[in-house]
Amino acid sequence: MSETQKFYAFNPSNNQKLEGEFSNTTKEALNDVVAQAVTAFDSYRKKDKNSIADFLEKIGEEILNLGDALLERCHLETALPMARLQGERGRTVGQLKLFADFVREGSWVDAKIETAQPERSPLPKSDIRQMLVPIGPVAVFGASNFPLAFSVAGGDTASALAAGCPVIFKGHPAHPGTSAMVATAFEKAIEKCGMPKGTFALVQGNTNEFGANLVQHSAIKAVGFTGSFAGGKALFDLANARPEPIPVFAEMGSTNPVFILPEILKQKGRVIAAGMAVSIAQGVGQFCTNPGLAFVEKSEATSVFSTTLAQKINETAAGTMLTAGISKNYNKNIENTLALENVSLLAKGQSSDLSNTAQATVFKVSMQTYTENAVLAEENFGPSQVLVEANTKAEVLEAARNLEGHLTATIHGTPADFENYKELFSILELKVGRILVNGFPTGVEVCHAMVHGGPYPSTTAPQTTSVGTLAIKRFVRPVCYQDYPSFLLPEALKDENPYSIWRLVDGVFTK
Amino acid sequence: MSETQKFYAFNPSNNQKLEGEFSNTTKEALNDVVAQAVTAFDSYRKKDKNSIADFLEKIGEEILNLGDALLERCHLETALPMARLQGERGRTVGQLKLFADFVREGSWVDAKIETAQPERSPLPKSDIRQMLVPIGPVAVFGASNFPLAFSVAGGDTASALAAGCPVIFKGHPAHPGTSAMVATAFEKAIEKCGMPKGTFALVQGNTNEFGANLVQHSAIKAVGFTGSFAGGKALFDLANARPEPIPVFAEMGSTNPVFILPEILKQKGRVIAAGMAVSIAQGVGQFCTNPGLAFVEKSEATSVFSTTLAQKINETAAGTMLTAGISKNYNKNIENTLALENVSLLAKGQSSDLSNTAQATVFKVSMQTYTENAVLAEENFGPSQVLVEANTKAEVLEAARNLEGHLTATIHGTPADFENYKELFSILELKVGRILVNGFPTGVEVCHAMVHGGPYPSTTAPQTTSVGTLAIKRFVRPVCYQDYPSFLLPEALKDENPYSIWRLVDGVFTK
Repeated sequence: MSETQKFYAFNPSNNQKLEGEFSNTTKEALNDVVAQAVTAFDSYRKKDKNSIADFLEKIGEEILNLGDALLERCHLETALPMARLQGERGRTVGQLKLFADFVREGSWVDAKIETAQPERSPLPKSDIRQMLVPIGPVAVFGASNFPLAFSVAGGDTASALAAGCPVIFKGHPAHPGTSAMVATAFEKAIEKCGMPKGTFALVQGNTNEFGANLVQHSAIKAVGFTGSFAGGKALFDLANARPEPIPVFAEMGSTNPVFILPEILKQKGRVIAAGMAVSIAQGVGQFCTNPGLAFVEKSEATSVFSTTLAQKINETAAGTMLTAGISKNYNKNIENTLALENVSLLAKGQSSDLSNTAQATVFKVSMQTYTENAVLAEENFGPSQVLVEANTKAEVLEAARNLEGHLTATIHGTPADFENYKELFSILELKVGRILVNGFPTGVEVCHAMVHGGPYPSTTAPQTTSVGTLAIKRFVRPVCYQDYPSFLLPEALKDENPYSIWRLVDGVFTK
Repeated sequence: MSETQKFYAFNPSNNQKLEGEFSNTTKEALNDVVAQAVTAFDSYRKKDKNSIADFLEKIGEEILNLGDALLERCHLETALPMARLQGERGRTVGQLKLFADFVREGSWVDAKIETAQPERSPLPKSDIRQMLVPIGPVAVFGASNFPLAFSVAGGDTASALAAGCPVIFKGHPAHPGTSAMVATAFEKAIEKCGMPKGTFALVQGNTNEFGANLVQHSAIKAVGFTGSFAGGKALFDLANARPEPIPVFAEMGSTNPVFILPEILKQKGRVIAAGMAVSIAQGVGQFCTNPGLAFVEKSEATSVFSTTLAQKINETAAGTMLTAGISKNYNKNIENTLALENVSLLAKGQSSDLSNTAQATVFKVSMQTYTENAVLAEENFGPSQVLVEANTKAEVLEAARNLEGHLTATIHGTPADFENYKELFSILELKVGRILVNGFPTGVEVCHAMVHGGPYPSTTAPQTTSVGTLAIKRFVRPVCYQDYPSFLLPEALKDENPYSIWRLVDGVFTK
């Protein structure tokens, strides 16, 4: 990476090169950017909560100010429909607003105060206070599949900035023009809100070496990532091998098993099959929470369900995927799965003459075939599902017990089913970040109670989430202030509670 | 480790072998123990909060029931004075009680509820709930320097059990008899409280391979550790190299820099020097928070301070260290430091004919010498300190900026000093887990607001603490329940709030 390498954006619908030339940020330029973030951190982390909240909202405003030009460029780079991008922009701006409100309310710093007991015997007790403080400059790696909501101004950036950490954002090479446009919104917001220059920076690059340099930079204190297992795991290993290891919050997707229990399969098999087909194919299946795996128990109802699902999938139009690489990979995996023994093709969606498309695909296998082929439990990023037919409840429970970590698991059932499958709930609680009942995992609400995370290998940090306000906790650590002079205490810890936040004072929650 | 290897306890004051023979737990036996913990987890994690609280208290009671025999054995194995061990037992039992109260209160699970909005447009909102759940069986490695409070029934065990996780405790080979006795208290508490058999197990061993087997066992979901950097880092690397990486919460000690600012040095140099000498030599310096490094600015007051410190240290009696190995290592490091150019010996405590002793030692160096010898900033576990004399305030700030991560930093100053050294506070906030003002870092209060942790290399998990109630968060992860049937929701998330805990309901804290 000693010389500047150029790269370009392509329209995945026709493989045509799009306007604009992008440069790999050189190592020297990267060092400058990080140095600016370090300087920025020193003042940004001390900004009062309302200033940070205003800044987050301003970023959202400036994104809206980019107007439809942003969505149009994004559409060209990703082939995602305009309506979807409009929704995604709303979600991105809403997310910034949610974090702004959360920061403005302020109680998230978990302030705790233990007052001094100078007379305590045998030893006096000091005045001891604790709160969460930002950890430092954060590197964020954007995802390809949400060019707005998990990209430059996405949840990782919003939560890190909300926490008080500067962000160096590594734009995804599949949508560099979109990234560059959104970065201008940050520039404007930084200027208008009087934030330090290095509070946010976009760096672009399309080589692994570039990402490695960023993660290995000694001033980077944490990494946010959304993408493939290979990518996330590589960053995790690099970060742990640093002289100072740092946390990597990598969300690496999963197959999100769905369990359809016997009673409901009988009662509502058709309706669930129709909903499932939509969930599989939505966004050309390019969601981390796509239902890639489903379990049913063999019965007459199963064939009704399968038939309906097959019919709906067969009718599904092909969709253009985000990049040529993703489409190639999806189609190769489909071929490989078909080549396995005892795997039958239940349904395949419509074909298309367009470039880089994916046809929705559902495979049907017996539990035995599923168990014998570990690859069937692995994610194929795109609109596909492996439907597993078990013979008994015990087989279903055993399959659940053998699951690796996933972002979500879903159970469809009637009250009688739930009573009968209590154990399944209990097993899945250990396997995933979110359990849904009678719904579909695609669609992740941005709110306080969301968990978009889960045990490894769905993430490298099962104790966190990358969606929802809890995501802010990834970028902070607790600091304890003992017998501190009042005028040097952070606002959140001053006696008079100038921020009017909830605090634990001598063991009691108070405001 | 295919065959059982025996090992023994020694009295460090006279190197005599103590009664009792201990066996390295074999790999096969270890597998059984872990299998029992896995089974126990399934029911232990579902115990109601009061049962877990009662259990924690019962463990404390049963430890007290062991009577003075426990302290006597412990004294023989560690050479720690009886009065200290009495205090440490009180702390251990108090810690269990603190976690019992914390669990009984119950709000620590961070329950959040977002009620459904079926009429929301464009998309309805699901009912979404979130709380913290235990992660699974935890392996804890005991420390040598707190044979009760950071050992079998120490803070790591207490916090993991409080979280709902079974514990497999690897006893420190320096006090196997103490560990075995405390383990009987667990057996009794488990029986009396009707907890599943595998909820707690002590395994003993004196080989690195043994520890590695434990950390690499696929059913272990997190590791707690207190000890050396080499030990903690080795476990961290092993845990990250597993097929499923797991978090290692290793507290690896530090040199805990102390800054004595000019004004207070003038006003109270003698008093601070006397306090410092006590803090250095307390417990033969065998504390993670021992003040191993101090900074002053050269002035007339410096020599008054140095003279008093030297005098107090010179008077200090030698103490027996915990093990022959620790004493050997301490004395070798002292020799190596003395052999460095431009390092002067400011003071050395009394010598002794007893075995395995340490003499308190203070070195004095210029800032230049300190800067040129990285080793001077490293911990020498025991009663030693490197006193660094700077020429200017700028040098002091620069030294602070170049610090690695530490558990604590301490500032002694007058209000005028604080005003003048505001920047020092700001720098240290990024370097440590706890900042103390006008105190000494030895002595760690067990409370809600404590942080016994800090940036790497003082720990492998800067976002956590190993002392205080916040330690419970190391052993949990958030799970989200979407549109869950009410009867299957955990108590903490049921509509009627049967636990009467603080919860965030639609963004508002309520009870």
